[in-house]
Amino acid sequence: MIRMDQLIEKKRDGEALSESEIRYFIAGYTAGDIPDYQIAALLMAIYFRGMNRAETVNLTMAMAESGDMLDLSDICDYAVDKHSSGGVGDKTSLVALPAVASFGVPIAKMSGRGLGATGGTLDKLESISGFNVNLSEAEFRRIARDTGLVIGGQSKTLAPADGKIYALRDVTSTVASRPLIASSIMSKKLAAGSSGIVLDVKLGRGAFMKTLEEARALATTMAQIGVDAGRDVVALLSDVNQPLGAAVGNALEVAEAVKTLQGDGPADFHEHCVEVAAHMLRLAGQGERWTDLAAARAEVDRALRTGAGFKHLHQMVQAQGGDVAQIEDTRRLPQAKIRYSLRARQSGSVAAVFADRIAWATLTLGAGRRTKGDEIDHAVGIEAQVKVGDAVTAGDRLMTVHANDETSLQAALVEIGDAVAYSDSPVDPLPLFHGVIDGNEL
Amino acid sequence: MIRMDQLIEKKRDGEALSESEIRYFIAGYTAGDIPDYQIAALLMAIYFRGMNRAETVNLTMAMAESGDMLDLSDICDYAVDKHSSGGVGDKTSLVALPAVASFGVPIAKMSGRGLGATGGTLDKLESISGFNVNLSEAEFRRIARDTGLVIGGQSKTLAPADGKIYALRDVTSTVASRPLIASSIMSKKLAAGSSGIVLDVKLGRGAFMKTLEEARALATTMAQIGVDAGRDVVALLSDVNQPLGAAVGNALEVAEAVKTLQGDGPADFHEHCVEVAAHMLRLAGQGERWTDLAAARAEVDRALRTGAGFKHLHQMVQAQGGDVAQIEDTRRLPQAKIRYSLRARQSGSVAAVFADRIAWATLTLGAGRRTKGDEIDHAVGIEAQVKVGDAVTAGDRLMTVHANDETSLQAALVEIGDAVAYSDSPVDPLPLFHGVIDGNEL
Repeated sequence: MIRMDQLIEKKRDGEALSESEIRYFIAGYTAGDIPDYQIAALLMAIYFRGMNRAETVNLTMAMAESGDMLDLSDICDYAVDKHSSGGVGDKTSLVALPAVASFGVPIAKMSGRGLGATGGTLDKLESISGFNVNLSEAEFRRIARDTGLVIGGQSKTLAPADGKIYALRDVTSTVASRPLIASSIMSKKLAAGSSGIVLDVKLGRGAFMKTLEEARALATTMAQIGVDAGRDVVALLSDVNQPLGAAVGNALEVAEAVKTLQGDGPADFHEHCVEVAAHMLRLAGQGERWTDLAAARAEVDRALRTGAGFKHLHQMVQAQGGDVAQIEDTRRLPQAKIRYSLRARQSGSVAAVFADRIAWATLTLGAGRRTKGDEIDHAVGIEAQVKVGDAVTAGDRLMTVHANDETSLQAALVEIGDAVAYSDSPVDPLPLFHGVIDGNEL
Repeated sequence: MIRMDQLIEKKRDGEALSESEIRYFIAGYTAGDIPDYQIAALLMAIYFRGMNRAETVNLTMAMAESGDMLDLSDICDYAVDKHSSGGVGDKTSLVALPAVASFGVPIAKMSGRGLGATGGTLDKLESISGFNVNLSEAEFRRIARDTGLVIGGQSKTLAPADGKIYALRDVTSTVASRPLIASSIMSKKLAAGSSGIVLDVKLGRGAFMKTLEEARALATTMAQIGVDAGRDVVALLSDVNQPLGAAVGNALEVAEAVKTLQGDGPADFHEHCVEVAAHMLRLAGQGERWTDLAAARAEVDRALRTGAGFKHLHQMVQAQGGDVAQIEDTRRLPQAKIRYSLRARQSGSVAAVFADRIAWATLTLGAGRRTKGDEIDHAVGIEAQVKVGDAVTAGDRLMTVHANDETSLQAALVEIGDAVAYSDSPVDPLPLFHGVIDGNEL
């Protein structure tokens, strides 16, 4: 018989927990038989002692299997999914998923909301009037089959243990633990039924992880979990020291996604989406089609330039009850009352665009959530027109701030401060990616 | 404003908590405003990160002041108390306190119960029919004033924060933390109103702490707390690799205490009690009487041999409703049905008396508690007739097992196994003490 106090003591003393011990506490906590305080103590012990690869995989599987495991085999033989660890200006799903779907690879994605400078993918999509993310499983499956593309909210029966543990971690200062972060993310991915997963792990000023080392370590752990659970996983290490693309804010990001799906997006964001979608295609191709990543990239690039991806976004918006007129003409999306131009105070090369300050400013404008349940203002946000390496002249517009009132505008301008740093000598552009991790090589 | 999640994070990251932070979480937890799970996470962070001297003192004071602070100034100018960390055969309070009281130094002691091989001091006293430890504060004070000696149960209003935190530590594997152990013990001592405290810290096979290093570290922390809180503290480091005295078991220990108070106790236990009582006298003397420890020892020794101490025990038993006939003739105390003699299986010098096995066997007989609420059998126990260094001949009686049924006797004999180890060459007796720590020198 497993005793919870002895299980805590074992982890406290640095020993590895067995699979049955991990399944015991996950099942007991999900059922309400093990109290919060014992799990809180265990989580803090895990924070200090970590978990080895086997423990982390077992924890992830136990959480994934704590609720329904989605079976997508009626939709496709090999489902492919993506996950982003979140970064300033990251609207990649809105572009990469329709692009992949345009190749006949069905995408049935469940997305979360989360906290941050802007909302998550669901919040961005809700900038479109009528767009419904609260789908029943039957609707979710029907849309996936009919249009080959659906993005819905996470079902409450998906990895309920993760939901319960995450809420506890949030109030016990045990969020910042790599095995706990990785297992939380991957449990939902595994439960959501995909066979291939592209992890878009962000790093830099505009991401949770500031350094390449942190990002690589987390990406490696997540990829190991996926592979050990029998999935194919590729992890990209993406730079968000500056915003991805120009738009930061929900409706602004939808508009930029639409432009990108019409071949007219910012160069960095276009390239980022091509890379993510190409990796998804390669996984979905299973060594037959798109084995060659360069070929997959070229095909995705064409799908964006020809509008094939946009057609799939359009179909999905229609199928999920959204007002397609708003994506046909993005000026119909929610617009903020005030547009304020932030201009360069000197001439020079842009040495840094402070994505973290932009994030705080965007949150101040009302585009995101500080705490669960906060209302989101879809119209507000910031467009950053410059990139590191650009040459600017004093007075050039650096950014456009979209605000709905004078007070929040002024507060956002305080947050944003000197939004960029200048250099007298030329500055190299930032790389888009810092590496790729192939789960099969771990 | 203090936020609990930030407070946990601070300790998690190895920073020291301020006095106001410590008072915040103790007050909030006592009042029920801070949930168990946040305290559980904090306790585990303290387990890993420890607490510095100031934090430990602040924690102790906050817990001490979470309930009533006993004021004994109407009973005496300078109250003196003792605390034992618990060891096999430890019935010191039953002897040392009456001995000290016989010098006109009033003793008003609140005692706990706790878990262990035998009960605590209260359980031992309850071997005497009618003995009442559940005294109101008024009764407690009246008996202290009238007879100069009272031993009562701990009032529920004494350091309630400690009670709540201890219960949580017990189920979250956060008991074994030096600052938490030290603050738990000392908060009750400080709240109980004594000015001078003798800590009898046990070490060895028959104690919680197995090594001198552990015992010295805990004793030092407790003494530091006491001194920083303005009390006089002396800590003795006492050996319980073998049982203290011969008797282990509630009524058996009362009988042995009575014998010792009549000058006829086992040599080691007699000497142990003399040392503890002499230190208490020296503290109570406040540099006037009994400044000289050797003189204090001689006086206590005389008080035991003349029966002066016994007179005070007798008065206390009477005042607290106990049947004095049972201490006048200890054969009237509860007697077990079966007496089993455990004999030496070979000749030689006794190299070890396994106090830990004796403890498990005594618990098996029913003399102690495995979990809170367990009933105690006052009659059962073990008398160990040999000490390390004794020469024995095969067939000599080593121990007498007092059991109330055949089943528990057999189970106890399995636990006790080879109760002693033998050597062919002579063995030195064990020391009684491994050192003394004077709080004023820390």
